[in-house]
Amino acid sequence: MNTFGNIFRLTSYGESHGAAIGGVLDGCPAGIVVDMDFIQNELNRRRPGQSKITTPRKESDEVEFLSGIYDGKTTGTPIGFIIRNNNQHSSDYDNLKDIYRPSHADYTYTQKYGIRDHRGGGRSSARETIARCVGGALAKLALKQLNIEVTAYTSQVGHIKVEKAYNGYDFSLIESTPVRCPDPEKAVEMISLIEEVKSKGDTIGGVITCVVTGTPVGLGEPVFGKLHAALGSAMLGINAVKGFEYGDGFDVNHRGSEVNDVFYNDNGQVKTHTNHSGGIQGGISNGQDIYFRVAFKPVATILMHQETINKEGEHTDLKARGRHDACVLPRAVPIVEAMAAMTILDYYLLSKVNKAFL
Amino acid sequence: MNTFGNIFRLTSYGESHGAAIGGVLDGCPAGIVVDMDFIQNELNRRRPGQSKITTPRKESDEVEFLSGIYDGKTTGTPIGFIIRNNNQHSSDYDNLKDIYRPSHADYTYTQKYGIRDHRGGGRSSARETIARCVGGALAKLALKQLNIEVTAYTSQVGHIKVEKAYNGYDFSLIESTPVRCPDPEKAVEMISLIEEVKSKGDTIGGVITCVVTGTPVGLGEPVFGKLHAALGSAMLGINAVKGFEYGDGFDVNHRGSEVNDVFYNDNGQVKTHTNHSGGIQGGISNGQDIYFRVAFKPVATILMHQETINKEGEHTDLKARGRHDACVLPRAVPIVEAMAAMTILDYYLLSKVNKAFL
Amino acid sequence: MNTFGNIFRLTSYGESHGAAIGGVLDGCPAGIVVDMDFIQNELNRRRPGQSKITTPRKESDEVEFLSGIYDGKTTGTPIGFIIRNNNQHSSDYDNLKDIYRPSHADYTYTQKYGIRDHRGGGRSSARETIARCVGGALAKLALKQLNIEVTAYTSQVGHIKVEKAYNGYDFSLIESTPVRCPDPEKAVEMISLIEEVKSKGDTIGGVITCVVTGTPVGLGEPVFGKLHAALGSAMLGINAVKGFEYGDGFDVNHRGSEVNDVFYNDNGQVKTHTNHSGGIQGGISNGQDIYFRVAFKPVATILMHQETINKEGEHTDLKARGRHDACVLPRAVPIVEAMAAMTILDYYLLSKVNKAFL
Amino acid sequence: MNTFGNIFRLTSYGESHGAAIGGVLDGCPAGIVVDMDFIQNELNRRRPGQSKITTPRKESDEVEFLSGIYDGKTTGTPIGFIIRNNNQHSSDYDNLKDIYRPSHADYTYTQKYGIRDHRGGGRSSARETIARCVGGALAKLALKQLNIEVTAYTSQVGHIKVEKAYNGYDFSLIESTPVRCPDPEKAVEMISLIEEVKSKGDTIGGVITCVVTGTPVGLGEPVFGKLHAALGSAMLGINAVKGFEYGDGFDVNHRGSEVNDVFYNDNGQVKTHTNHSGGIQGGISNGQDIYFRVAFKPVATILMHQETINKEGEHTDLKARGRHDACVLPRAVPIVEAMAAMTILDYYLLSKVNKAFL
Repeated sequence: MNTFGNIFRLTSYGESHGAAIGGVLDGCPAGIVVDMDFIQNELNRRRPGQSKITTPRKESDEVEFLSGIYDGKTTGTPIGFIIRNNNQHSSDYDNLKDIYRPSHADYTYTQKYGIRDHRGGGRSSARETIARCVGGALAKLALKQLNIEVTAYTSQVGHIKVEKAYNGYDFSLIESTPVRCPDPEKAVEMISLIEEVKSKGDTIGGVITCVVTGTPVGLGEPVFGKLHAALGSAMLGINAVKGFEYGDGFDVNHRGSEVNDVFYNDNGQVKTHTNHSGGIQGGISNGQDIYFRVAFKPVATILMHQETINKEGEHTDLKARGRHDACVLPRAVPIVEAMAAMTILDYYLLSKVNKAFL
Repeated sequence: MNTFGNIFRLTSYGESHGAAIGGVLDGCPAGIVVDMDFIQNELNRRRPGQSKITTPRKESDEVEFLSGIYDGKTTGTPIGFIIRNNNQHSSDYDNLKDIYRPSHADYTYTQKYGIRDHRGGGRSSARETIARCVGGALAKLALKQLNIEVTAYTSQVGHIKVEKAYNGYDFSLIESTPVRCPDPEKAVEMISLIEEVKSKGDTIGGVITCVVTGTPVGLGEPVFGKLHAALGSAMLGINAVKGFEYGDGFDVNHRGSEVNDVFYNDNGQVKTHTNHSGGIQGGISNGQDIYFRVAFKPVATILMHQETINKEGEHTDLKARGRHDACVLPRAVPIVEAMAAMTILDYYLLSKVNKAFL
Repeated sequence: MNTFGNIFRLTSYGESHGAAIGGVLDGCPAGIVVDMDFIQNELNRRRPGQSKITTPRKESDEVEFLSGIYDGKTTGTPIGFIIRNNNQHSSDYDNLKDIYRPSHADYTYTQKYGIRDHRGGGRSSARETIARCVGGALAKLALKQLNIEVTAYTSQVGHIKVEKAYNGYDFSLIESTPVRCPDPEKAVEMISLIEEVKSKGDTIGGVITCVVTGTPVGLGEPVFGKLHAALGSAMLGINAVKGFEYGDGFDVNHRGSEVNDVFYNDNGQVKTHTNHSGGIQGGISNGQDIYFRVAFKPVATILMHQETINKEGEHTDLKARGRHDACVLPRAVPIVEAMAAMTILDYYLLSKVNKAFL
Repeated sequence: MNTFGNIFRLTSYGESHGAAIGGVLDGCPAGIVVDMDFIQNELNRRRPGQSKITTPRKESDEVEFLSGIYDGKTTGTPIGFIIRNNNQHSSDYDNLKDIYRPSHADYTYTQKYGIRDHRGGGRSSARETIARCVGGALAKLALKQLNIEVTAYTSQVGHIKVEKAYNGYDFSLIESTPVRCPDPEKAVEMISLIEEVKSKGDTIGGVITCVVTGTPVGLGEPVFGKLHAALGSAMLGINAVKGFEYGDGFDVNHRGSEVNDVFYNDNGQVKTHTNHSGGIQGGISNGQDIYFRVAFKPVATILMHQETINKEGEHTDLKARGRHDACVLPRAVPIVEAMAAMTILDYYLLSKVNKAFL
């Protein structure tokens, strides 16, 4: 269950305070041009310590590829990669060895496996998502060759929300602010909210919006492998995610007559006047933009006193130390993109099979 | 991709106007007592024509089991089953043969496969969900032996929402109203809204809430197989579903200090004072109630004039005939339960592996 | 584990004395022309009672397709099918209810599942292979569109073996004899051996050879999905099979210099002078003929007195009644072909993914 | 397709002359005591240069574990590992860059992927099997806790065969000779045959026999996941393997009455007087010893002149350089054991699911 995907498959491994995080990408087609700078840059977007609103942990997170690439191209064989852990302060976690932190995975892991690597959250740490960013970066490179683009941004932090739909924004502004929001004014408000929350040792959640453009018609596998079910599963697999919606989502107060997307013929291309469907109909992409929203809870690690219990079931107090994010959304933006990119590539490859006899 | 699950696996087949809907349940453990009346009753809850607010189509939907059951118990071998189609009015669809209905799967199926069985939506019809209800009914029978209960209800239709959390309601009231809402006053409002919408030939969406009680600690497979990711994927695989959230979901305007679930020792049992986590932490069940919400769009088939295009790309008018639901939620309640029950049973079986060396 | 294949997947169900045998074919590409006569003919080749050397049981084995086919072509959606059981003499097995027949699956099923449908072997009966013949027939129809042919024949019964390699025979003779051996003289010897064995109530094993011609270069997935590993697994999944070899197989007394297959250029086509490799190199088809041999043990059901034990562990005597094959090979020939055809089609579809970026 | 197993899954990566060979073990249960010396010793048994009859290449093959182990035990999370390549003489292969070596995977890889890492065979090199030995070593440690033992030995080299069945030998003698044959006299003959073949630059094949003792009743998943089908697939996935048989295998010249295994009650334990079934009935283990034989062709790399063609289809001459095995069997013994151990552990874990409701 540490493998993601059907054809393009990422298998990831690694604990936050173990020797390394890494993975294997299997099913990657031959012939993808591997741009190492692009891949490292994707990792840097996820990296801690990149701005004042993220954790001050300094992690270099350099990826080494071990196989599957020859003469700058993928060869079709599995791509092993490794990111060594360093700058780990395991002793920050000594006091947590026998304690179940509230809303963390400490209790559930211990009950499930009987054993727990408590250092830094072990396998449940979001540090594992580095492996996903490597897979996502490769998937993005493949999608680029197909003119498919995946873009995510922070659309809500606490009560601060952007007001326009995704197509009201200039995506080139996303990376110009550390909060990765394309609305410059809202970005300022979000940053000051995060700073306020951080100053109290508290945390805050929010929403990331993601858009996929250029998807061909026909990706998605009915019945159980609907494209949006795959995207939803991918997003819900990201740490701290609590919800997923695409198209109109939970905005259900409309009549069918208001939200049906009417087809028209735009000089030989089938398009829809509106896009309440979010680019997916019957689980299959229809060629319009795919867009969805992902809800993140506030991070469970807060630098405040909390009550809890320990392994013996005794009540105890807890105050976390360490260097944590007050809001994960800015760093989660590239992770959302990575998971979306891997999903779209996987379904693109699956669709090759559908066409086999056409 | 017509198979659902890892260990307990449903493979479904069938088009709405073909010979039958059916499926195979593989990986069902031996020894489940098969209560045929219970199973047929679950199908009846999904059946069209059960009340004035659902489609008047009369379908008997009787299931025949073909294998895997002997002396009233499952034997561990695959369970084949079939539900014959009848009362199909295929000619209702003759005028749709070459037309792409707005917000339906007509266009995407045609582009994906080159061929489309247009009668009644073919494979994309919600009639396919009968197979899921059979699988879900068997899963419920298995879960009952483990004291796990799965209950869903309509919590919103259009703008009418229930006001309390799930634990503020008496679930025994759910089946007492055709809209399957445990709040009697809201139920009345929902029904009159559906009747109004129906009288105009229009449709309306809403939200279903689902609760799982009695789940043991330890179900869920990090990293990509988180329990809520599996539930989300299951729900997003249901026709017309646009969103999934569990625990606090999209309600993100809270601080970590407000929504962390504090553990306490309740006479030897670990519990949490609150349950913002929705019963799942780090992707693994923590023994508290699991609850989640599922958003449904209004059905795309409306009995009103609409513009669209045909296979040749020519603009044309469309008015659907036939017998359709103005609101799918009442009939979707047992489908949500079915998918949830199969997911929970599947993860229960997976967890047996975790314990193999403990 | 009742599903076979990666992309083209057969899920089968059914016990020999239950209501039906059936299955679902998922991942079948759209656009295959479905020749119903051909499919029924494949089932007839497997059917009991077709000649004096097979079991006298009369089973009509008529397949009904339930979905996935429209206007005579596959639509890309799952193909459900059913073959009703009839002419079952369940009472023939009443005396076996609590007895473990030697070299049968009675004991192992009972231990594994705690429950056993003893009638006719239940799920372990070779009657289940009807479902494979349906899947194989569809796969053959698809392969025909690609000019790939799969042919099997009986090459050994007991001590009687054909003497030439497969390319020394005229395959059009295979169906001219009930034993399905293309060597007319050996066929006569095999038939008289089977008749002699049958007259004593005993059984005899043998070997089936299978040849696949027209396979394109590039089918097979290193490392664990080698084409011959998939074929081997497919064959070893057939009842009574004890061994699989391809190319030179167990004939290991040769030097590398003797058995390396030297490449040459035959007017622009790469070929090999010899074919010790059996058409597969490094797990991937090389365009030469694929050939392999499958060993079958004598059927365990003999009409002679045998000792054994019952469920209580008491020693008891056993004499099987019923109508059984003295030699399964003639009827296993179409099953070997079916499994090979499904495997080759599955790998053909997988190979479409490899070419996605070339 | 670089993943092996259902529950206990090895995903391997790496080319012979790339940076490393490695893998991820997912689904390994928590609580296995990890004996690092045992694991390294298993790798040493596979290592080149261990005796005069194997290749003189010196490879240290030291494994580094990167995750999934804490305090000397497995934690249930995925186990990443890496074995760095060194002592690679890539320039030995410069002359092979554009040449298709006879009976190698050069031609088929190039046709399949369009790209080939020619150095040392790339991904098709048997060096990849290091990853399997790591997985196998862990599986053996787990099986040891269950009192299941997996033992393989060389039973034939060229025309030299051992004469007794496996239970006629003292397995403690296997490691006392570099050819890993428990018959001391045959071992001497095998070694002198290998030396003779080697002196000519030629190669020779043979057979490895493998025995699994202590397997509980009930492992194996009918219909397509029969235990022997899984073992066969595992063995056929090893480089140079051409055949697999278990129990009586290709020795088909017997009557059913001669080879049926009669059950008896041995003080409350069900046993069989004979074991023609090879410990598996109906695809499920019956508690008797499991044994099977694996045929290996002579290695394709010979140090003699050979004809072949190059990428342009031109005829050319070839003489391999480098350091190669004249006979792979001694070094393949631990690989056979590794694949068998992983298969048995995987099916043991699967069987936990069968018992869930018993």
